Amino acid sequence: MRVLVYGSGQLAQMMYLAAAPLGVIVSAVDVSNETVVHPVSKEPTGVSLQNAIEDANAITVEFEHVPEHLLLDADKSGKLFPNVASILAGADRVREKALLSKHEIPNCPYLIITDVTDLDNVIASLGERVIFKASRDGYDGYGQWRMQSADQLEKLKSEFAKLDLVKVPLIAERMMQFDREISLVGARDSEGNVSCFSLAENLHFEGQLHVSVAPITDLSDSLQSQANEIFEKLATAMDYVGVLAVELFQCGEELLVNEIAPRVHNSGHWTQQGCDTSQFEQHIRAVLGLPLGAVDVRGVSAMVNIIGCTAFSRDLIGIAGAHLHWYGKEVRTKRKMGHINVVADSHSHLGNKLAQLLAFLPVEHFPELEAEANRLKNYTK
Amino acid sequence: MRVLVYGSGQLAQMMYLAAAPLGVIVSAVDVSNETVVHPVSKEPTGVSLQNAIEDANAITVEFEHVPEHLLLDADKSGKLFPNVASILAGADRVREKALLSKHEIPNCPYLIITDVTDLDNVIASLGERVIFKASRDGYDGYGQWRMQSADQLEKLKSEFAKLDLVKVPLIAERMMQFDREISLVGARDSEGNVSCFSLAENLHFEGQLHVSVAPITDLSDSLQSQANEIFEKLATAMDYVGVLAVELFQCGEELLVNEIAPRVHNSGHWTQQGCDTSQFEQHIRAVLGLPLGAVDVRGVSAMVNIIGCTAFSRDLIGIAGAHLHWYGKEVRTKRKMGHINVVADSHSHLGNKLAQLLAFLPVEHFPELEAEANRLKNYTK
Repeated sequence: MRVLVYGSGQLAQMMYLAAAPLGVIVSAVDVSNETVVHPVSKEPTGVSLQNAIEDANAITVEFEHVPEHLLLDADKSGKLFPNVASILAGADRVREKALLSKHEIPNCPYLIITDVTDLDNVIASLGERVIFKASRDGYDGYGQWRMQSADQLEKLKSEFAKLDLVKVPLIAERMMQFDREISLVGARDSEGNVSCFSLAENLHFEGQLHVSVAPITDLSDSLQSQANEIFEKLATAMDYVGVLAVELFQCGEELLVNEIAPRVHNSGHWTQQGCDTSQFEQHIRAVLGLPLGAVDVRGVSAMVNIIGCTAFSRDLIGIAGAHLHWYGKEVRTKRKMGHINVVADSHSHLGNKLAQLLAFLPVEHFPELEAEANRLKNYTK
Repeated sequence: MRVLVYGSGQLAQMMYLAAAPLGVIVSAVDVSNETVVHPVSKEPTGVSLQNAIEDANAITVEFEHVPEHLLLDADKSGKLFPNVASILAGADRVREKALLSKHEIPNCPYLIITDVTDLDNVIASLGERVIFKASRDGYDGYGQWRMQSADQLEKLKSEFAKLDLVKVPLIAERMMQFDREISLVGARDSEGNVSCFSLAENLHFEGQLHVSVAPITDLSDSLQSQANEIFEKLATAMDYVGVLAVELFQCGEELLVNEIAPRVHNSGHWTQQGCDTSQFEQHIRAVLGLPLGAVDVRGVSAMVNIIGCTAFSRDLIGIAGAHLHWYGKEVRTKRKMGHINVVADSHSHLGNKLAQLLAFLPVEHFPELEAEANRLKNYTK
């Protein structure tokens, strides 16, 4: 069997590696030049995109920003999973917010800004602390503006006046007081079966995910089931097939959806070592109509992103339970180069292992790690 | 980093898949035509063997029957692990027996037969129940003859008279009464560190491995440590670097070495799901001089070989803990096509899962499975 993935980065690569044991060959599409490439070597396979579409048993995406004409072309084959509307909802915050509102899924109060004059309603409607996000291409913290008090509004107005707000509206969102950011990664198959991974706790720095821990500390059954319900409601409403990630804010016992990603997700990488079935294999199973796999956790996991650096000691894999996942890309500032999964039998042991890990890493590139190691070390539940 | 593997079958393929996350690219050598190929697609990479040897950080083998001139060529680079003598000891039972005897490692009593007249000593020295094995190419039960009583000796003599016993001697070995066949797969790195996986229990049918279970039932600390000692003694004596498999007969609390395989081994495939580090990743780590990984087991595993058939239901992967590993080869009688790893939290639960598995498989190709499922189901320790 064959799966064609639009996008040829690390997510396609990890899908390839997870699919191969099932006898499933994954090819990737470099969407910048519409070339079919090997997901690991990135070398052209010599197969045309049209032939690759024909040969595929299923077609999917590794990111939501695939040019729309490519999605529509792929969709004609009847083999694209998830469906176009789901992918576009992940690529466009206006569609995403409409989806959440339509299905009454709790999310942060917002306004859609298509004209600078819309800003006049913002403070009355959302308060003084507001985050403005470009509705499209708002990837990894780029294209975001924060207002902390009313006196910043005029400056933002003049900045936004330079933008084409009709073409790319902004979402103005109330900055919520939340306890932490968590995410639910799950899968839905074409028969409507849903299977969710354990909740992950996510630490961001300058808009990028740095560390995930799963299961989250202080995980209650009610929190997990609340998240699962949100997931199932959303995935069912979207007639979604594949792995879907839902980023959430936890405010006390309440969960608000921050955003959704119609694909395997960085906050689900821990499943590679931490679960019976990884999110990558689960996605491949779902889009091919194979049964979903078990999602039992193996102990407690952390995923540590390696961002913008290559200078670390590979000897970190000598730490029991530490596994490197290297993407083989050229280094660039803020670029995700790889990640490290660490598995332990308790949160406090995980904290000890993260502390060990620090010795092998240039700590300036891992601004969240030491504090998180300390927090987990002292976690006694 | 790059690793070049001589041999382009499923073992090279699984090394490739295990190495890629470490940022290690594995290429394979099809030894039949000395061509460098991709270990999954088997397509030529276009790189010459000589260039591949130069580019490699380490060179290794997936089977011991690599033509000797290729081994010697590879060895000139100084990057071949394990060393040539170790590989040849696995390919030649005369060398293997000499090694075991030299280091006083318990094994079955034997004679080397280089002339038909040597057979005259066999019964006096080994008894009437003797197994004769060709010293080379004795792979998966081929090239073996069994004598159950003295009256069969004359017939064997006339059969052996047709062979070139000087070129390929026979090993005559006392057929031992043993309780079961087990194996120890472990690794040794270039600094002499040794790490052994848990003992696996192996069920053979017509000379081929069909099912492995690890850890073995009734595993005692003394049995594991006895096996580990044998492993360490052997690996150290051979100055071995990489993964080495030692097949053993258990006779009460005594262990006898049956044979050794200087490579990753079918009876170690369970480590892919059943251990923190798989044998494939462990081998790659060892030959590259990276730290060895942890070998903690995750529950209890079974590995079920899929031999000589393709007609089974892929839906078997819906069983919680069941993972398919498919090699993508054309089907042939007695050919290993893939395997299924099943993980459970106890031997009895593993038995239940194996029983579930039967429903998805053509049972005539899995002659050992039902009885093993029943044995494990009823195992209450």
